[in-house]
Amino acid sequence: MKRLKAVRKSGDHENPKINMDFSGAEPVTVEVTRGAIVESRHRGSVAVVDVQGQVQLAAGDITRPVYPRSAIKAFQALPLVETGAAEEFGFTPAEISLCCASHGGEAGHVKTVEAMLEKIGLGEEDLECGVHWPTHEESAFALAAAGQMPGQRHNNCSGKHAGMLALARKLGADTKGYTDITHPVQQRILGTMEAMCGVHLAEAPRERDGCSVPTWAIPLENAAYGFARFGAPDDLPEIRAQACRQIAAAVAEEPFMVAGSGRWCTDVMTVLGQRAFVKYGAEGVYCASLPEYGLGVAMKCEDGAKRGVEVMLAAVLRHIGVIEDKDLQQMAALKSVPLVNRRNFKVGEIRPAEGFLSF
Amino acid sequence: MKRLKAVRKSGDHENPKINMDFSGAEPVTVEVTRGAIVESRHRGSVAVVDVQGQVQLAAGDITRPVYPRSAIKAFQALPLVETGAAEEFGFTPAEISLCCASHGGEAGHVKTVEAMLEKIGLGEEDLECGVHWPTHEESAFALAAAGQMPGQRHNNCSGKHAGMLALARKLGADTKGYTDITHPVQQRILGTMEAMCGVHLAEAPRERDGCSVPTWAIPLENAAYGFARFGAPDDLPEIRAQACRQIAAAVAEEPFMVAGSGRWCTDVMTVLGQRAFVKYGAEGVYCASLPEYGLGVAMKCEDGAKRGVEVMLAAVLRHIGVIEDKDLQQMAALKSVPLVNRRNFKVGEIRPAEGFLSF
Repeated sequence: MKRLKAVRKSGDHENPKINMDFSGAEPVTVEVTRGAIVESRHRGSVAVVDVQGQVQLAAGDITRPVYPRSAIKAFQALPLVETGAAEEFGFTPAEISLCCASHGGEAGHVKTVEAMLEKIGLGEEDLECGVHWPTHEESAFALAAAGQMPGQRHNNCSGKHAGMLALARKLGADTKGYTDITHPVQQRILGTMEAMCGVHLAEAPRERDGCSVPTWAIPLENAAYGFARFGAPDDLPEIRAQACRQIAAAVAEEPFMVAGSGRWCTDVMTVLGQRAFVKYGAEGVYCASLPEYGLGVAMKCEDGAKRGVEVMLAAVLRHIGVIEDKDLQQMAALKSVPLVNRRNFKVGEIRPAEGFLSF
Repeated sequence: MKRLKAVRKSGDHENPKINMDFSGAEPVTVEVTRGAIVESRHRGSVAVVDVQGQVQLAAGDITRPVYPRSAIKAFQALPLVETGAAEEFGFTPAEISLCCASHGGEAGHVKTVEAMLEKIGLGEEDLECGVHWPTHEESAFALAAAGQMPGQRHNNCSGKHAGMLALARKLGADTKGYTDITHPVQQRILGTMEAMCGVHLAEAPRERDGCSVPTWAIPLENAAYGFARFGAPDDLPEIRAQACRQIAAAVAEEPFMVAGSGRWCTDVMTVLGQRAFVKYGAEGVYCASLPEYGLGVAMKCEDGAKRGVEVMLAAVLRHIGVIEDKDLQQMAALKSVPLVNRRNFKVGEIRPAEGFLSF
């Protein structure tokens, strides 16, 4: 197993003390420039934890509970695989990848959701995720140009919800109300989250997510610990370890399904393959598994900005050594994101802040 | 003239010392909640300055140069009125309001831009703002549903650009290249900005804005000073004072033109009328004039978030007393913005941070 290039002094998982040279506020991690000056700044917290639960790198407060939102969809998919539901309904790797997805509502995503619903004998009306236009702009305008309106199948979470419906069927539970916290599907997911992340969630802050399922707030260090084990699951019970491997392999095989065209999760995993599993969550969250290092990563941009946490993630993966020079040649945005205006003049960039991880 | 309810110790405009109890970073000004906890935080800087240039209220660093972006469009429109170009081309109050706009590209906006271009004998192809889909979502999808693509007239800055073309015509300058920093139109605007804000911009950081015209970075205290004088222009040269009054009146009369349906600038001015002129700028900037108080406001959300600076502005206007209880009944979002999910469950709110201006 690879080692972190620059391992910092490791703290106790229960009470980590490591921090960047900063007090009183989250450190500035990302800068947005325009011309010669920094126009906007993003702050964030980062936890990198190993499979033993040791914190290997920390910035900001990693003990405060954070809603992981969609960043832990892979954990929400574990019971689907562990119970045998995915096998029973004949879910393909593309479909399992879509269960972990915040997809763009592109034609390929929507078709796959429809196929999943057909396999479990249910329809779009059984989803409880709500409706929004595809987040993939071209797909949204193509839908409008065809004179259509979006349905629940276009919701970025529809794959996850189809998976939850399959789990409900497998558990013999009512498919109606599967998004409620009292439903067996959500209770099963709660237990899985607790076991993966080594945290009790009974009294954790919780609220409905954008798609109406519960989201429980978890300290970043615990989310990172869960993702370390997800990527290097040898010490987990065999049935869970097998499910982790199957889900990670499915997403690596079908990275388009987990997000879509022009999206970071898809692009990063297309470049890195099995070297990293990465997943965005709303309000500026990212989680990642780095199997070769036995590390998990969880981070939160204080202000909730996606553009901020994407650049934070790339910086951390470069720092650890997962992203190599050859990867930067394939995806220059892993170093910094150029900003152009409406007429394509280059006006600035989004980059790691000076002093953050020595960039 | 009304006085600020809680006037803080006033500093020297050239070197203001007033600050909130905070060091090393911008203060947290806005909180985004989900369930029982704060999910995301926004930080910001605020300057409230009077017509004498005295800082009346400050939070964060108000001396650092900030690109005001679209927040100073009213200043960019001053030469249009002062030179007599607006009168010569017969611009209506709606058209003058649109010159100060970041509009949504709704049918009413687009029609008005087309009328302006016709009055000055030019066409959409003469605009140099670039193309994007209407920011007003329904209008964008309606355009797509009609099988059309957006043009430069849909650009949120197209009204300002039509005004700049009118100014170029009046100055006898080439209309081509009017967005370049060396063009007489931009040089005239530069001088106007300097005079209004009491700042030399020759060596200020500058870059092209999203719509390709120059934006010069100005300390917030100077931008606020400029807006104090814009709203209470009695001490300015008569031709400029008259232009300030005409522009402010046009926007107050036609608040739809300056932004559009469901937009803060429009909604706030619809409620407050002539009590406030408010204008958003990209990357989390807001400027405001409060004529009854002789005050100007300029603020910047550190991370560039629109949702952050909108709530900051409402908090500052409540603190000063411009927003009264009866206004909150008309627009509850001036107190806090409710957040609902895809199925309309209430999940949280955006509100002033605890401790910011005693909320």
